[in-house]
Amino acid sequence: MPPLPKYLSGDQSAIDEFINKFDIFLFDCDGVLWSGDHLFPGTVEALELLRSKGKKTVFVTNNSTKSRADYQKKLTAMGIPSNVDEIFASAYSSAIYISRIMKLPAPKNKVFVIGEAGIETELKSEGIEFLGGTDPGLRRDITPEDFKNIADGSMLDENVGIVLAGLDFHINYLKLSLGYAYLARGAKFLATNLDSTLPSNHTFFPGAGSISIPLINMTKQQPIALGKPSQAMMDAIEGKFQFDRKTACMVGDRMDTDIKFGLEGKLGGTLAVLTGVSKKSEWEAEGAPIVPAYYVDKLSDLKG
Amino acid sequence: MPPLPKYLSGDQSAIDEFINKFDIFLFDCDGVLWSGDHLFPGTVEALELLRSKGKKTVFVTNNSTKSRADYQKKLTAMGIPSNVDEIFASAYSSAIYISRIMKLPAPKNKVFVIGEAGIETELKSEGIEFLGGTDPGLRRDITPEDFKNIADGSMLDENVGIVLAGLDFHINYLKLSLGYAYLARGAKFLATNLDSTLPSNHTFFPGAGSISIPLINMTKQQPIALGKPSQAMMDAIEGKFQFDRKTACMVGDRMDTDIKFGLEGKLGGTLAVLTGVSKKSEWEAEGAPIVPAYYVDKLSDLKG
Repeated sequence: MPPLPKYLSGDQSAIDEFINKFDIFLFDCDGVLWSGDHLFPGTVEALELLRSKGKKTVFVTNNSTKSRADYQKKLTAMGIPSNVDEIFASAYSSAIYISRIMKLPAPKNKVFVIGEAGIETELKSEGIEFLGGTDPGLRRDITPEDFKNIADGSMLDENVGIVLAGLDFHINYLKLSLGYAYLARGAKFLATNLDSTLPSNHTFFPGAGSISIPLINMTKQQPIALGKPSQAMMDAIEGKFQFDRKTACMVGDRMDTDIKFGLEGKLGGTLAVLTGVSKKSEWEAEGAPIVPAYYVDKLSDLKG
Repeated sequence: MPPLPKYLSGDQSAIDEFINKFDIFLFDCDGVLWSGDHLFPGTVEALELLRSKGKKTVFVTNNSTKSRADYQKKLTAMGIPSNVDEIFASAYSSAIYISRIMKLPAPKNKVFVIGEAGIETELKSEGIEFLGGTDPGLRRDITPEDFKNIADGSMLDENVGIVLAGLDFHINYLKLSLGYAYLARGAKFLATNLDSTLPSNHTFFPGAGSISIPLINMTKQQPIALGKPSQAMMDAIEGKFQFDRKTACMVGDRMDTDIKFGLEGKLGGTLAVLTGVSKKSEWEAEGAPIVPAYYVDKLSDLKG
């Protein structure tokens, strides 16, 4: 059994010791810095404190609906100064994986996207051909002709070699049917991330995992996931930022994504915050599989 | 290990012996009588042969998009004579379960439906109040106001006590969000059936299980399923038709729904047909969990 995490809130010397131990802090965003459009009080000050001590801050998000540039705008709008290179999102991670790791030979390397514009932007930035996504032609009811044309293949692009599923606020039966048809014909199955829920407005809505799970259930195939806790994402972050993992700390609200991501990546530390999905009871349970090294009630407690 | 099934195709004396053994035949429809809108040749003649020998025929379907009356129209249009009382569909089975078994006390007994008109028709026939379903007001994109109003509960009906998920060709993010919100507030979780795929046009499309699986994944809760292989459905069929299970034979194409349904219901026999989902290799595999008692290549082989 790993030891219980150290509780930092209200303990200034423990906070100082914690901060001094690391050079780089990887932050999950939703549930840590904000919930939906609600910025947690003290978030900006906590980040500024770390930066004032010379720490590097990186924003790591599984939210695939936004590109890195979109995410920077969100940070800016919320008053969090940042630059685009500090941002690592699952849409970007997916694009990198497709272009630099999978490298499927043309022409059978097109991507059928189930997801929003953020994925499209990052695929474009890596020069990857795709279809689906925000195509208005797919934002409609399925017709009897569609059933026929999907079944006989005439509605399918024979050069699709990959299905990439991320959070799609416009998910529908037609897109699921097309995604399944491509997978049944042998396309590789990727998912930006597998979070079952999306924290928003202090509650939960369907997450990216809700989009891929019908396809998993139909094909009995697991996708390669490019968001936390997938170590493919950690490798990409390390490759980009060139840091010593022992000097890095992952900060997050979810045991099964954020904290697992940090632990499996063998980072120097993990810090849980209680403003999101996971409750203290998760790691206090007998035989809890995932236990963070530290925890605070809320990120702003780091300000002391 | 159960013995391998007896192969009947082309063996007239085995076919005669098989037919003589049973008084009632329960038929799965999609994949047995037809695929999509394509009636398999010889279906009508095979059914007429059984009826001419005084056998009772019952059409048992997990398709929840149609009411019993809709299904009868489909049978009629295909040239299969039938009456509505021979039809047992998962939408009907769900309505019966809600009204006669669950019997939640009013007023907190409304049903939030994710599904098509067939479910609504059967709920109405049992006098069950519901919302959702084919409501055109829910066939649209989710808005920022919806996120807020679902989160604060103002968009929710506080009298919803049940979420019933069936096949919905108009599934969208808004409906999944509402379904999850009701479940998170304690509504009971029912599913018409859990088939991951829907056979159509000689291939597969997303089935009712593709609609409930995101909610299962989000809530970590299994719904009570009212379609095959759920024995709740078998009990309802037996209650209605009053037959001796030993004289009944289940005919179907899927091991994990139809044949399992017959085996777990301890019917006198099970007949697999090879015109649908399952292949012979499924029961021939070492340690196959589900093995039918008989099989034919196609239903019309019973004509001899």
